[in-house]
Amino acid sequence: MNKFSLCPRYEIAFSILGKKWTGLIIRCLLDGPKRFSDLSELIPHLSAKVLADRMKELEQLKLVNRTVYPEIPVKIEYSLTEQGRDLEQTLHAVQAWAEKWITVDCK
Amino acid sequence: MNKFSLCPRYEIAFSILGKKWTGLIIRCLLDGPKRFSDLSELIPHLSAKVLADRMKELEQLKLVNRTVYPEIPVKIEYSLTEQGRDLEQTLHAVQAWAEKWITVDCK
Repeated sequence: MNKFSLCPRYEIAFSILGKKWTGLIIRCLLDGPKRFSDLSELIPHLSAKVLADRMKELEQLKLVNRTVYPEIPVKIEYSLTEQGRDLEQTLHAVQAWAEKWITVDCK
Repeated sequence: MNKFSLCPRYEIAFSILGKKWTGLIIRCLLDGPKRFSDLSELIPHLSAKVLADRMKELEQLKLVNRTVYPEIPVKIEYSLTEQGRDLEQTLHAVQAWAEKWITVDCK
């Protein structure tokens, strides 16, 4: 068996996905592009301030695209990048494991 | 689309798996039971102190079994529980995504 060393990519991935609300926002966007207000409505317990922070982070991480439509009033839509959409299997795998093994009530 | 709320199980799963070294230790144990000294040798940059802490946590989380063989000297072996082995797909999914998309050098 080869020796193992810690790959920072693995740690970085977990630090991104493990951040509160991030996985949930990505799961909402897997369903299709959403406006800020759509996301806010879909995740009622998430404050507008925290949602705005998370969207900025996800944009910086290149997981989310922010598209501005020059309408009046201006329309802003968030969608997953290819890198973001590619997280679908990963999020499903973590969710499936958690549902099978972690015994905490989800309301 | 249904409203989403944060499931604590998902967060708990990420807080377990995202902890430094934990994923790597589990990946070593997926290869079969190991003694403390085997793990220490396989993961050279991990100190004995931190390895001991992680093994205690993994035992408490029921991801790892600690078996004591009453030999002289005493032999202690760590192996994954069913819950721990079931993480294989999840760890592979995170690793595959990280390798594809995160551009940091792994030495």
